[in-house]
Amino acid sequence: MNPIPVQDSFPADVADATRQILVDAHRPTLERAVETLRTRAHWSPYPEDPGAYGTDAEAAGERAFRALLDRPFPLEQPGRDGTVGPAPAEGGEISPYGFALGISYPHSDPGTLLACAEAAADDWRRAGALIRAAVCLEILARINARSAEFAHAAMHTSGHGPVMAFHAGAVHAQDRGLEAVAAAYTEQDRLPAHVLWNKPLASGEPCVMEKTFTPSGRGTALLVGNRIFPAWSGYAGLFASLATGNPVIVKPHPAAVLPLALTVAVARDVLAEAGFSGDLVALAVEHPEEGLARTLAVRPEIRIVDFTGTTAFGRWLRDHARQAEVFTSTTAVNTVLIESTEHYAAMLDNLAFSLALYSGQLCTSPQNILIPRAGIRTDRGRKGYLEVVADLAAAITRLLGRDAFACDLLGALCGPEAAESAERADAGAFGPVVLAGRAVHHPHHPGATVRTPTLVALDAARSEDRATLAHAHPGPVFFTVAVDSADDGVDLLLDTARTAGSLSAGAWTASEDVEHAVTHACAEAGVMLSLNMTGDWYLTQSAVYSDLHGTGANPASDHAFCDGAFVARRFRTVAVRRRV
Amino acid sequence: MNPIPVQDSFPADVADATRQILVDAHRPTLERAVETLRTRAHWSPYPEDPGAYGTDAEAAGERAFRALLDRPFPLEQPGRDGTVGPAPAEGGEISPYGFALGISYPHSDPGTLLACAEAAADDWRRAGALIRAAVCLEILARINARSAEFAHAAMHTSGHGPVMAFHAGAVHAQDRGLEAVAAAYTEQDRLPAHVLWNKPLASGEPCVMEKTFTPSGRGTALLVGNRIFPAWSGYAGLFASLATGNPVIVKPHPAAVLPLALTVAVARDVLAEAGFSGDLVALAVEHPEEGLARTLAVRPEIRIVDFTGTTAFGRWLRDHARQAEVFTSTTAVNTVLIESTEHYAAMLDNLAFSLALYSGQLCTSPQNILIPRAGIRTDRGRKGYLEVVADLAAAITRLLGRDAFACDLLGALCGPEAAESAERADAGAFGPVVLAGRAVHHPHHPGATVRTPTLVALDAARSEDRATLAHAHPGPVFFTVAVDSADDGVDLLLDTARTAGSLSAGAWTASEDVEHAVTHACAEAGVMLSLNMTGDWYLTQSAVYSDLHGTGANPASDHAFCDGAFVARRFRTVAVRRRV
Repeated sequence: MNPIPVQDSFPADVADATRQILVDAHRPTLERAVETLRTRAHWSPYPEDPGAYGTDAEAAGERAFRALLDRPFPLEQPGRDGTVGPAPAEGGEISPYGFALGISYPHSDPGTLLACAEAAADDWRRAGALIRAAVCLEILARINARSAEFAHAAMHTSGHGPVMAFHAGAVHAQDRGLEAVAAAYTEQDRLPAHVLWNKPLASGEPCVMEKTFTPSGRGTALLVGNRIFPAWSGYAGLFASLATGNPVIVKPHPAAVLPLALTVAVARDVLAEAGFSGDLVALAVEHPEEGLARTLAVRPEIRIVDFTGTTAFGRWLRDHARQAEVFTSTTAVNTVLIESTEHYAAMLDNLAFSLALYSGQLCTSPQNILIPRAGIRTDRGRKGYLEVVADLAAAITRLLGRDAFACDLLGALCGPEAAESAERADAGAFGPVVLAGRAVHHPHHPGATVRTPTLVALDAARSEDRATLAHAHPGPVFFTVAVDSADDGVDLLLDTARTAGSLSAGAWTASEDVEHAVTHACAEAGVMLSLNMTGDWYLTQSAVYSDLHGTGANPASDHAFCDGAFVARRFRTVAVRRRV
Repeated sequence: MNPIPVQDSFPADVADATRQILVDAHRPTLERAVETLRTRAHWSPYPEDPGAYGTDAEAAGERAFRALLDRPFPLEQPGRDGTVGPAPAEGGEISPYGFALGISYPHSDPGTLLACAEAAADDWRRAGALIRAAVCLEILARINARSAEFAHAAMHTSGHGPVMAFHAGAVHAQDRGLEAVAAAYTEQDRLPAHVLWNKPLASGEPCVMEKTFTPSGRGTALLVGNRIFPAWSGYAGLFASLATGNPVIVKPHPAAVLPLALTVAVARDVLAEAGFSGDLVALAVEHPEEGLARTLAVRPEIRIVDFTGTTAFGRWLRDHARQAEVFTSTTAVNTVLIESTEHYAAMLDNLAFSLALYSGQLCTSPQNILIPRAGIRTDRGRKGYLEVVADLAAAITRLLGRDAFACDLLGALCGPEAAESAERADAGAFGPVVLAGRAVHHPHHPGATVRTPTLVALDAARSEDRATLAHAHPGPVFFTVAVDSADDGVDLLLDTARTAGSLSAGAWTASEDVEHAVTHACAEAGVMLSLNMTGDWYLTQSAVYSDLHGTGANPASDHAFCDGAFVARRFRTVAVRRRV
């Protein structure tokens, strides 16, 4: 990057002084993030160990979360025309752990929100990329300080277990936001703000032109949140749009409003303190069955849409929100291939953890586990197909033997579809059950639906089994799939990624040829490949600042967190030139 | 940029040795281009003075062009299923200077071209960004060595005058190509090819992952060429796609095949010499009324489309080629505002030149010249509206007094629509004529249609005049437009850019307030603004490596030559990671 300019003095009003303070405070973090995006090394300013936030942080976070329950959410926005919640029939949220949150939210007239966003945009655009980045980093820092509270909000909207909630619902989501800010700053910093261009003309006279290049946001952005990871999935688009000079309307998933409502509230506070209009970030909650995302997405004011969710609505957005740059991340069907291994036990433990984590509800969770029907070579000798399946089932059972630990790892099932899908699988609807799911009693939340994974054995040679594995099945439903050979498995992995879409792939192999084949297939299909995972890193995990999440090259996602294309499409550069 | 890696030795076969030679030969140029895109300084490796190519170069170029006439174009491609041309009724080209070229081209089956492109793609992707860039630079270097020949091809397809042809038809088009290659290389070089990621885990053990990041092209690209500037408009997309790992099918405008046919032939030769399949770049000429662009654009194999041309076909492509990333540049209506000046005579001369250049057929040519009806302040005293109009007309007449010079500057009208539009304007169809066009006899090409500009006086207060100026009029038709005030003019400039689309704007003003207002309007509308141009640099000109051409922020174009978004959308990055 170019060195971030040091501004000696800002005009002496309060807002400008605040901006100066924010720039000074966050410059080192921004510089480090920009550098890390280049090196892809491990780094984060947001500790993932809850203990790093002080001994009282967890308790204080829970108190803060409890204080939000059973009352109106504190958010002042223009255009209020109603209330969503608190009763579930009125759109109030219900924790997957089994209780109603009792929170109500202000509903605003969409036209008013859009008009206020437009009115606020000019100041924000003129502030420049550095001040915008500093304001975004202040928003993230304040969210980070409340990570335990955000974690509780994530647990009780998405059903995360406590560790998952603290990571994906808080600090790793903050990482995604910072990553997007750093990528956006880098992209806006590519061209010099000001340049003297000097061309010797044929006449001998130099032609000297003074030129300025100014990044200019495309216009108001719409974030359509999802239920599973509203913060982790949403922050990249939210902060990428904001950092490139665009107001953002946040339309949360009706069942997971709180994490994004908290985010919007923090953002509005920080923006106002820095002398900008809080209306640059607004919350657009919806009444039951209102379909607000559809209404907003096609408004001419909306120039950017970020969406994570169903394949059907992703397609609808791409078909209808033609006035906007649309970024969609939709359902993925992820495949792993087990061909051979020199670490059989460690492989099984690693894979079992990947399946159990948050009940397989991550967009990177594997669904289809391909194993050659002739069995595999391992450090413990040759293992038959059924032996591998049984050993995997045993590893899962062993991992989830203690209920308290199982609950933390599995989290609660998020929505009735997941439980229904698991029940159908257990009833044999998809094929022979090799490991039945087990309902787990939650020690603190008796109303939570917690289930261990169900393993179903399929055969790639059967066409109805191929139809089953070609679709995403919600909840903790996983398929072991007998394939004729490693090559057959590679072909199936490639085909599934191309047709159903994949965000992650895994392979265990000790063969160079198979490694080469699966690497080539993943390159063709645009899927990140994790090879021979063992120990405590899992193919479901995406390390922010290092791993790209998604490629944009298959139907699961049309973009990646966070490459150049993800941020570059959110602004334009306008030049002015004059003869000197 | 990261330092470009030096590869000590390539495997010793001929293709690899050739690739090594190309990398060594072009590395300094690539490095300099990458650096220049950052600094936006003046630079080009392709001299714009024809004299720099040797005393015989112009004559040799003309001989080479003449040798192409009246025979089949030498191009070997797979899937040949017919012939286009040489007779005009069979699709043969006619020079705007008044003679048939008599060239025939091989027509290929589109399916075969696509299949061969796909078959060729894998090697090209695996070669990596550096070798791809070097091959692209070799293609450009060979085209550059034949610039005089390409200039003649441009004259006799697009009707350029000789200087315009040598610049926009040859060296500046090569600059656009190199710019795209450098931007593509930079974008692909953002992530390290290989990294060790080291995260300390809670257990105290480090988690070390080996990661690779590999850019992977989206798939076959389609370039739909235009008639006015097939090389200048086309090379950016062609080379951006090729450099990011994609085969390119080139569908030229039926009236301007030769420049792109020559380009394809050079590219195929260089690719084959470097051990790649020539089918990575293929020519898809069409029979009269075949509509081949429509057929190709919706083929599932086509993943990228670049198009410059009519607004209607641009819209059709965006609506129908949904499987592809589509880049369209369509009709622009460009505005200048004359509010005040301290260099009245120089302003008039500069503007007159901008209008006359290539008969206003550039996509950056101004059409609407706004002047406050109360007149303007100048260094020669106050000038009334009609006085400014008359002085501008006189400046045009003075500039074009000598026929030979006029012919060189005006070029030939490209297509019957331009001549018809000029004739209608002269007949008063648009409003009162303040300067009638004059047919100019071309000293060497009696069949050429050469006309001086027509100036028509409109009034922004009249609704029918506003309708007239809101649309693009082909050919040398320009409007002086009386506006109520500078503010009124700024509003009209903004409105025209937003609704009709603009690629360039100009203003002459000595007022800081007006400068501020027009700068703000151009930022809002996403138009490059040239302020107070005098001397021999014109608002129509775009300096490659320094100026962005287009912004993507108004209907004239959905992209810019050559920002990050222009190249980043053409490839994806696929990662592989493994535990170390």
